[in-house]
Amino acid sequence: MTASVATTMDHLLTPAAAEHHARLCELVGDSWRGDAAAWDRAGRLPAEVLRWCAEQGLLGAPLPAEAGGGGWNMVRTGLLYEALGRVGASLASLVNVHGMAAQTIARWGSEEQHRTVLPDLATGRRIAAIAMTEPGAGSDLAGMTTTLDARDGGLVLNGTKVFITFGGQADVFLVFAYADGGDVACLVNRNTPGLTIEPMGDVLGLRAACLARLEFRGCRVDPAALVGRPGFGLAVLAPHALEHGRHAAAWMAAGMLHEVFAATARHALARHAFGRALIDHGQIQSIVTRMGTDLEAARHLCLAASEALDARDPAAGDRVLAAKYFACRVLADHAEAGVQVLASSGVLESSVTARTYRDAKVLNIIEGTTQVLERMLAPRLAASVGRDA
Amino acid sequence: MTASVATTMDHLLTPAAAEHHARLCELVGDSWRGDAAAWDRAGRLPAEVLRWCAEQGLLGAPLPAEAGGGGWNMVRTGLLYEALGRVGASLASLVNVHGMAAQTIARWGSEEQHRTVLPDLATGRRIAAIAMTEPGAGSDLAGMTTTLDARDGGLVLNGTKVFITFGGQADVFLVFAYADGGDVACLVNRNTPGLTIEPMGDVLGLRAACLARLEFRGCRVDPAALVGRPGFGLAVLAPHALEHGRHAAAWMAAGMLHEVFAATARHALARHAFGRALIDHGQIQSIVTRMGTDLEAARHLCLAASEALDARDPAAGDRVLAAKYFACRVLADHAEAGVQVLASSGVLESSVTARTYRDAKVLNIIEGTTQVLERMLAPRLAASVGRDA
Amino acid sequence: MTASVATTMDHLLTPAAAEHHARLCELVGDSWRGDAAAWDRAGRLPAEVLRWCAEQGLLGAPLPAEAGGGGWNMVRTGLLYEALGRVGASLASLVNVHGMAAQTIARWGSEEQHRTVLPDLATGRRIAAIAMTEPGAGSDLAGMTTTLDARDGGLVLNGTKVFITFGGQADVFLVFAYADGGDVACLVNRNTPGLTIEPMGDVLGLRAACLARLEFRGCRVDPAALVGRPGFGLAVLAPHALEHGRHAAAWMAAGMLHEVFAATARHALARHAFGRALIDHGQIQSIVTRMGTDLEAARHLCLAASEALDARDPAAGDRVLAAKYFACRVLADHAEAGVQVLASSGVLESSVTARTYRDAKVLNIIEGTTQVLERMLAPRLAASVGRDA
Amino acid sequence: MTASVATTMDHLLTPAAAEHHARLCELVGDSWRGDAAAWDRAGRLPAEVLRWCAEQGLLGAPLPAEAGGGGWNMVRTGLLYEALGRVGASLASLVNVHGMAAQTIARWGSEEQHRTVLPDLATGRRIAAIAMTEPGAGSDLAGMTTTLDARDGGLVLNGTKVFITFGGQADVFLVFAYADGGDVACLVNRNTPGLTIEPMGDVLGLRAACLARLEFRGCRVDPAALVGRPGFGLAVLAPHALEHGRHAAAWMAAGMLHEVFAATARHALARHAFGRALIDHGQIQSIVTRMGTDLEAARHLCLAASEALDARDPAAGDRVLAAKYFACRVLADHAEAGVQVLASSGVLESSVTARTYRDAKVLNIIEGTTQVLERMLAPRLAASVGRDA
Repeated sequence: MTASVATTMDHLLTPAAAEHHARLCELVGDSWRGDAAAWDRAGRLPAEVLRWCAEQGLLGAPLPAEAGGGGWNMVRTGLLYEALGRVGASLASLVNVHGMAAQTIARWGSEEQHRTVLPDLATGRRIAAIAMTEPGAGSDLAGMTTTLDARDGGLVLNGTKVFITFGGQADVFLVFAYADGGDVACLVNRNTPGLTIEPMGDVLGLRAACLARLEFRGCRVDPAALVGRPGFGLAVLAPHALEHGRHAAAWMAAGMLHEVFAATARHALARHAFGRALIDHGQIQSIVTRMGTDLEAARHLCLAASEALDARDPAAGDRVLAAKYFACRVLADHAEAGVQVLASSGVLESSVTARTYRDAKVLNIIEGTTQVLERMLAPRLAASVGRDA
Repeated sequence: MTASVATTMDHLLTPAAAEHHARLCELVGDSWRGDAAAWDRAGRLPAEVLRWCAEQGLLGAPLPAEAGGGGWNMVRTGLLYEALGRVGASLASLVNVHGMAAQTIARWGSEEQHRTVLPDLATGRRIAAIAMTEPGAGSDLAGMTTTLDARDGGLVLNGTKVFITFGGQADVFLVFAYADGGDVACLVNRNTPGLTIEPMGDVLGLRAACLARLEFRGCRVDPAALVGRPGFGLAVLAPHALEHGRHAAAWMAAGMLHEVFAATARHALARHAFGRALIDHGQIQSIVTRMGTDLEAARHLCLAASEALDARDPAAGDRVLAAKYFACRVLADHAEAGVQVLASSGVLESSVTARTYRDAKVLNIIEGTTQVLERMLAPRLAASVGRDA
Repeated sequence: MTASVATTMDHLLTPAAAEHHARLCELVGDSWRGDAAAWDRAGRLPAEVLRWCAEQGLLGAPLPAEAGGGGWNMVRTGLLYEALGRVGASLASLVNVHGMAAQTIARWGSEEQHRTVLPDLATGRRIAAIAMTEPGAGSDLAGMTTTLDARDGGLVLNGTKVFITFGGQADVFLVFAYADGGDVACLVNRNTPGLTIEPMGDVLGLRAACLARLEFRGCRVDPAALVGRPGFGLAVLAPHALEHGRHAAAWMAAGMLHEVFAATARHALARHAFGRALIDHGQIQSIVTRMGTDLEAARHLCLAASEALDARDPAAGDRVLAAKYFACRVLADHAEAGVQVLASSGVLESSVTARTYRDAKVLNIIEGTTQVLERMLAPRLAASVGRDA
Repeated sequence: MTASVATTMDHLLTPAAAEHHARLCELVGDSWRGDAAAWDRAGRLPAEVLRWCAEQGLLGAPLPAEAGGGGWNMVRTGLLYEALGRVGASLASLVNVHGMAAQTIARWGSEEQHRTVLPDLATGRRIAAIAMTEPGAGSDLAGMTTTLDARDGGLVLNGTKVFITFGGQADVFLVFAYADGGDVACLVNRNTPGLTIEPMGDVLGLRAACLARLEFRGCRVDPAALVGRPGFGLAVLAPHALEHGRHAAAWMAAGMLHEVFAATARHALARHAFGRALIDHGQIQSIVTRMGTDLEAARHLCLAASEALDARDPAAGDRVLAAKYFACRVLADHAEAGVQVLASSGVLESSVTARTYRDAKVLNIIEGTTQVLERMLAPRLAASVGRDA
């Protein structure tokens, strides 16, 4: 990875943003480019990677400066995810789930949480993750059955959460549950008695993301660990966290697609079959052109989402959904095409195409499946026309 | 059409461009919105429409002010095509082919042509069209067989051109041919002896675009009617004209897709089936979301192409190809989906969906088929990666 | 059309069926091949075509011999629709709607109807059509609002039906309505006082199918004109008629796709671009291979549906749905691709590709839209797995 | 797996073939159903599986009875691959590559080879594999650089073969190379001095298929080990072997798709979201219907290919290509969709969806990539139309 690869996005960016992006690509790329296959095999990120992320300030990048964060706006934060996505989806996902939790606390947490928890998250001394999904309730969060009950003068958490990204490595979880006063989110430390954490076993993608199953059996929760008010959990906090997560997922998909495109293009130029370079075969031309134009379109939609968030545009939420929807969907299509173009070398797990083919599928499931995003986005898009007409 | 429909693009535009676009949408929409079906039936644009375009200065909009044109940059010109595309593809195509010829003369024509021909084109006193395609040579221009031979101290044109948009209504043609010194382009008036113009008969789309077949049999051409130098015809003039045409086609596709999306969204909100509004059915949600996000992506790519042209960015040509490729392709997909959602009312020729379904197919053939664009664009996209790595 | 074209299906058929099919292709092809474009322009089938269909016994082919029909089984009937589809969708649709009505009367009609109505339909002395769809109720038949009320000792019909195929030419309609005792179907003659028939105006496809709007205003209906019992209309008769119609639509789509494939293949072999035949370009190879294999798959599914109907297989209804769904869907995809391959010659309305591109879209809406077929078929397909496991 | 699952194909089969298939499904399913995930993790098939295949006669099933084989025709052989595909692609691939080599020897081998080699292959005492693909020559076999040179009164083999399915477990290889007299195929034992076999490392799919890299460095080859005449290697033997391999791949894809469909259908019936079973959501209905109809179409094309082979139909080769092309392509599409429907449970590597998603991609690369099959099949399909017209 050289700075010049990054320049292919420069025409979309202000000079300052372009420089920021180039610096990130270089920083992340110089350190970890090419390591994702090994992380996949190991089924986790090495501790040194987490430490490095913390030291570089990447884990607190979008948090307010007063909380010890970098104070990056959403454009700069998005470009970070793009740069991370180029190296690997698992690395980008670690930063993402940590950021989802940290951002939610920064926005909705108590003063005490701002004082005691947030600085640790901003500096990466502690890693946070989000515990939302349940065995019987995926994208339909309202179907969750985890409860936080008042008992013996305290609060007790019972329930099961699954597919918790970096559940295997996080120090603290933002857990969603039903309490008496309504749905809530609360912070639960990894070492809380009654909390059992099991790895989910082999998964198709995000293999280094330590997906885990969390069992809460009578875990005592301090009332001070509640984030936001009862009744706010699903209506306010979860959407806030998911918006952050979708924004990140969109950009990381753009970064991953960049790598697939680069590998596909290079192979198409270098490899010959039937007397001509692959790039001179019509079928390959079709694949390369679609991939390249969709990549460019995905970047535009991602950037528009970031800018809308920074501008507090009321349409920002829709733009984030659109960017996540588009970028992840075309990533899956083109990862598939990339494997096909690279053929026998594209199916090696050491290749970016094989790994991205697996990771891309997962990106179309987490933070809202393709289908759930359509369910959310279609009425909003349609209504906007209705209003205008 | 009210100004507010146009505002759905405002977030992409500078305030001045947004106002320009809103004004155009209002101007064109107030005058002609809803008339495209009648034009289709008639198989031509009424003379008053051509006159109106001339009076409003739309036919000379992108021409230099010193030639009597509007001096619009490519962003403003693109937004014109978007606004025209909302009313109908045939109207937009008239302005486009006229613009392709006029722009080529403005850039490569002689001083005399600038003095005698260009002002008439800028004001719309005369309508121009491009005569490029031949029965045996479509996208592969080098295969053309029309010749411009020196004979009896003059030049004589022989050959056949087909699918000439607005061939049936244009006053003057920019004709491509092989001469002794190489491939050339020359201006030929409609009333030139030896030129026979026949309508092409019924066509699937662009029905009001007066597609014609032109037979040149011993037409005498004044050497002063040559545009540019011999050897420049296919290498310089045709690409220049086609770049203008593709930029316009991309934007008109975006405008057409806007209309299809609006019709689809309104129907999905209003119509019920099996006890629920269509927008509450998953299949319709999928269609609406794809259409809406692809529309947004198409606009981004179009605008990036316009801005690159205005900035004389060396990558401008690639961005124009990408915008034309993407916008026309998704238009065809979504026009198909739009008919499906509107179902029995969507197949009425008075509906925007049925007309766009037909027009969209033609837009994927003219100014370079989807396949030819892939052939052009794939090596360029791939090479850009190679250079960066 | 020669017999040998038909032979491309021979490997699927018994020798007797293959000969039957070859004879039909020759019979229909010799008489009408190439005429569909003219019928489209005229917006109706010439009277001589209807007469010819009657004389050849095509209008009564699947009716029982005792009713004056041909007694053809469903395989032979399906092959008839395939042969008709090769000539044009409107012709095939005429035979289809007539057959849907006639079959329904043959199966559920009274003895009197068998004596007085059926023979006229079997011989084609009278043409029948189906009046089902309403402005506010398309595929969701239960939403219809047409009523058949007891009044003044008789029955009175009020309501509006739209998109009635061959409504403009049929002599008698099988009309679905709500009566006191439940939903019913009844026969209404064209000249019934109170019935107004208006052409629907221009439509995207099936242009020669005389689509009409029928207004019933106080039409008196003889109780003897009721077909089947009250409560049977939507639950028994409509599905029966639609099953016949879907079986026919599937086969006519296969016939239409055959013609598109033949045109595409010939063009790909004959036309050159960039120094090679189109068939030597990868993109065209991809299109041709998909089209050819999908055509073959469609034929298999059609034949399996016919055979299941003939065998009174309980799964016959599912196979008919699957054949209609698959054949019409791939027809639309490939008609689009066929236009693209033929490019400028493919958009001429005189070409099979342009016409089929329009007709194919309509075939995905009538007799159950793609989406409604999915709604019907998915639970059945899924349940069959559940039962087997 | 019970016999009744198999019955979903019964309507396509003769009673004898249906019973044969049911017996195979039960035999293979009872023994190994559910073990494929463990084989994947181990990266190889346990020795007991190979032994079991041999004992059951599966490794010699299609070989002539006189060679100790089962003498199964292609329909019965195809149904074996379908039954194996239901359990796992790696198991089916083992039987396939062994069969490709054995069939080629049965057809083209010398009397001596029939006496000394074939019986061992028929009984499975020895496992054979095919060594065709090279680092620089995948689907374009003519580009291979392996040589078999006359030296010191013998023959010496030099070259590199990659992606050799079951290269890690086979006892003998059928190796393709260029010799003086033309291209040849020869048998080389695993323990031949100069032959180094290395596993290819992790691959995306077919993980238990022991893909290996074979280096031949001065391996001495007995002239009696040549199979067929020089000049026959690429023109006759390779196509023969590949035809067997494609026929098998098509059927195993059908079997794999059956399993994906069953898993998807069951999940869609059982799982609820947003208050309804998944099967009641339009998007899922669309996925299930496409998957189910494509599965049925794939089976038809597979069976037609088998029957054509059994009938020595000149079109058999085309039908095999069509079946492989269609079945593997729709398998990849629907494995992707199946993961999406099962969502978080679909990405577990223990699920059939995740494994098939990976395996399906490889099936579209081996035995001719999708693109190479299009290159082969398009001109043949197009020419057949030309002949008929």
